[in-house]
Amino acid sequence: MTHDDLTRLTATAAADLIRRGETTSEVLVGACLDRIAARQDAIHAFVHIDPDHALRAASEADEARREGKGAGPLHGVPVAIKDVIDTSDYPTEHGSPAFVGHRPAADAACVAALRAAGAIIIGKTVTTELAARRPGPTRNPHNPAHTPGGSSSGSAAAVADAMVPLALGTQTAGSVIRPASFCGVYGFKPTFGLVPRPGVLTQAHSLDTVGVMARSIEDLALAGDVLQGYDPRDASSLASSRSGLVQLATMDWPIPPIFAFVRSPAWGAADARMRDAFGELAEALGHQVIEVDIDRSIERGVAAARTIQMVELAHHFGPLFDRTPELVSPQLIEMIEEGRAARAVDYAAALGDREALYRTVEELFYSHGTILTPAAPGPAPSGIDHTGDPVFNAFWTYLGVPAVTLPLLEADGLPIGVQLVGARRDDGRLLRTARLLVEQLASEA
Amino acid sequence: MTHDDLTRLTATAAADLIRRGETTSEVLVGACLDRIAARQDAIHAFVHIDPDHALRAASEADEARREGKGAGPLHGVPVAIKDVIDTSDYPTEHGSPAFVGHRPAADAACVAALRAAGAIIIGKTVTTELAARRPGPTRNPHNPAHTPGGSSSGSAAAVADAMVPLALGTQTAGSVIRPASFCGVYGFKPTFGLVPRPGVLTQAHSLDTVGVMARSIEDLALAGDVLQGYDPRDASSLASSRSGLVQLATMDWPIPPIFAFVRSPAWGAADARMRDAFGELAEALGHQVIEVDIDRSIERGVAAARTIQMVELAHHFGPLFDRTPELVSPQLIEMIEEGRAARAVDYAAALGDREALYRTVEELFYSHGTILTPAAPGPAPSGIDHTGDPVFNAFWTYLGVPAVTLPLLEADGLPIGVQLVGARRDDGRLLRTARLLVEQLASEA
Repeated sequence: MTHDDLTRLTATAAADLIRRGETTSEVLVGACLDRIAARQDAIHAFVHIDPDHALRAASEADEARREGKGAGPLHGVPVAIKDVIDTSDYPTEHGSPAFVGHRPAADAACVAALRAAGAIIIGKTVTTELAARRPGPTRNPHNPAHTPGGSSSGSAAAVADAMVPLALGTQTAGSVIRPASFCGVYGFKPTFGLVPRPGVLTQAHSLDTVGVMARSIEDLALAGDVLQGYDPRDASSLASSRSGLVQLATMDWPIPPIFAFVRSPAWGAADARMRDAFGELAEALGHQVIEVDIDRSIERGVAAARTIQMVELAHHFGPLFDRTPELVSPQLIEMIEEGRAARAVDYAAALGDREALYRTVEELFYSHGTILTPAAPGPAPSGIDHTGDPVFNAFWTYLGVPAVTLPLLEADGLPIGVQLVGARRDDGRLLRTARLLVEQLASEA
Repeated sequence: MTHDDLTRLTATAAADLIRRGETTSEVLVGACLDRIAARQDAIHAFVHIDPDHALRAASEADEARREGKGAGPLHGVPVAIKDVIDTSDYPTEHGSPAFVGHRPAADAACVAALRAAGAIIIGKTVTTELAARRPGPTRNPHNPAHTPGGSSSGSAAAVADAMVPLALGTQTAGSVIRPASFCGVYGFKPTFGLVPRPGVLTQAHSLDTVGVMARSIEDLALAGDVLQGYDPRDASSLASSRSGLVQLATMDWPIPPIFAFVRSPAWGAADARMRDAFGELAEALGHQVIEVDIDRSIERGVAAARTIQMVELAHHFGPLFDRTPELVSPQLIEMIEEGRAARAVDYAAALGDREALYRTVEELFYSHGTILTPAAPGPAPSGIDHTGDPVFNAFWTYLGVPAVTLPLLEADGLPIGVQLVGARRDDGRLLRTARLLVEQLASEA
């Protein structure tokens, strides 16, 4: 295989090749490092890499395989980590001047889970400041004049630009699904509480969710299987485990999926190219799609999500601002001030509304199937001074439901994601429905 | 047995007598109803009774027993229910003019659990307005010029005054432990989340806990076993179950208990008679007691608990006040206004501080044993226009730890409770320690 082939593999395919001895982790990681080096100045996806360290880990993985050890599902496969997630062997700077040179003592739980599965941590990817609004230097691989989205900017760009098959991101409003949509990769925000968060920067503890970017649905499922689990250190960690996501996602299924098409209240103001592309998609799916209007619930939920995010962000980042205001951007100060001005009863109402709104939405899954909705207001906007609007994501993050984005549409050479949303804890079935949709559209094309 | 003997039985003893056919539910319930009728004008413990209905249920229980059915641990035993807990067969008025004549369609989960265990719901007991501050008409059986405490005023008075062996209360700050202390009965506030709350008035969802008043520790354990369980409708309901509390509480145990004596920051301003009585108790326990000062943690926790209670109370009761201000007392309006004035970041901090403060306290259980601390600032104050101060309870409720009060001390003919506090989920061991303490003091007396 050429370097070019290797760097475009899915994680599942790469793990298979390594397992069968058809390539080695060292060759694969080396190819990815070459690609990162070649593209760093143009794309700026990474903020920390250590080629010698990564190659050493790859060589140890190869050695273990030769000794018959190392049966983990990601054995030898490189994975990139958003720089708000602690790593014991790379700095974790949170995209903030306040954390320059910060070196955590231990891996985050999710990084430890990846390593236990055999993954090679290849480096840390660019995040917006503290996973909030101020962008980093990352550019969209499809057109460097455009934003890659954020806050998981580098993770989305790295997967899209053949630097790494798999990357971790985090989503508090739309920070996994939106950059994945803008960069044309598969993105997965699991059910809230499925992936434990110890060692992940806390921006808004009621919303923060670890997610995944990849090149296939099976890779999202594989990563989900590796990452999910109960952790008593995370008060939101879900106790019981479910069947494997890969097993559910790849299962034969005779019934074509049906969808509840939710335009959302932001539809009218969204990019006409996105609306046209979705209109064509809905038409192509014909009677598999029924349009559903839950705009009032979404409006309430988006406002509640914003209240929760700003209040909890002010709670967690306020002390940093008080200590070192000069290290906090004007965009973040504005958010902290918004959170500090909020009334406690409005925050309590925002938290309390969640279950009632979820019950409304849960009905839809039974009556109409999986929710189909835009991943973002359009293709990636031009400019890298902002990362776009999470208005099509915040409601689903607030509800804690699983969401995926599929790179099925495009306009003017820029990808447009199709977002599917499922019921809480139904991540496996959501991924299966996503796979069926991708297969159906491919066979019809 | 005379009526007088019957009405002073513990629930465990009453259930045994009925099981063995030595008395019947109808006789027992009849004796309790007679006592309630005789004492209602003096004590006002009940707000709703329906003697015919209760006697019919008792007669059905006796009939079931004769047919060999009805093996529930409370079969035929009367239980009283605080009037903030839904019952399908009695009104539930929450001590509020806004709920006069309110009749819930279904039993609360805890009432359903009691009925499933064979209990006879004998009536509804007086609560302060919406379990907050404005007292009802209940008087202390030990001296009717004194308050019985609140908000579970009627439940404590009914158990103390030989009306019923067992009663449910609720605690958001100190509403089970304080009235139990004032009325000289055993009180138990289980670990937060152990007893599911559907059908119980929500005042402050992060604090509200269903508790029990009884005449023995074994009865507290028995009621706890009947009431505990997971309920998905209560977001705070704890998932996994533990060994039976009766089994743990009555288990042989060779090691004398040791205690961490926590005076609390309110000690200095408390009643000198309470302080003297506790001083003597600590002296009698000698080397089994080590004094521990966690005043700074308690001060922080009491302030946080107040913020949470006022904010959540304002969230839940604010709409009632806005709709019908004339049906809300000035005391409650003041609380709603305090909650509405609170900042969201302070509420988030109060919620967020809980785990850190719990970790401090958890250390004590390992290093020093069970916490021994006053149940209230003194014996019941005179007057029934206020129900006393929960300052010795709010911290433990905030932490979600289990607490019991034991009627071991007294001053001027009024009881003074000894509060023991254990680690979360350690309810059974806490009850066992309480039993060992009671037995030790009895054998030394």
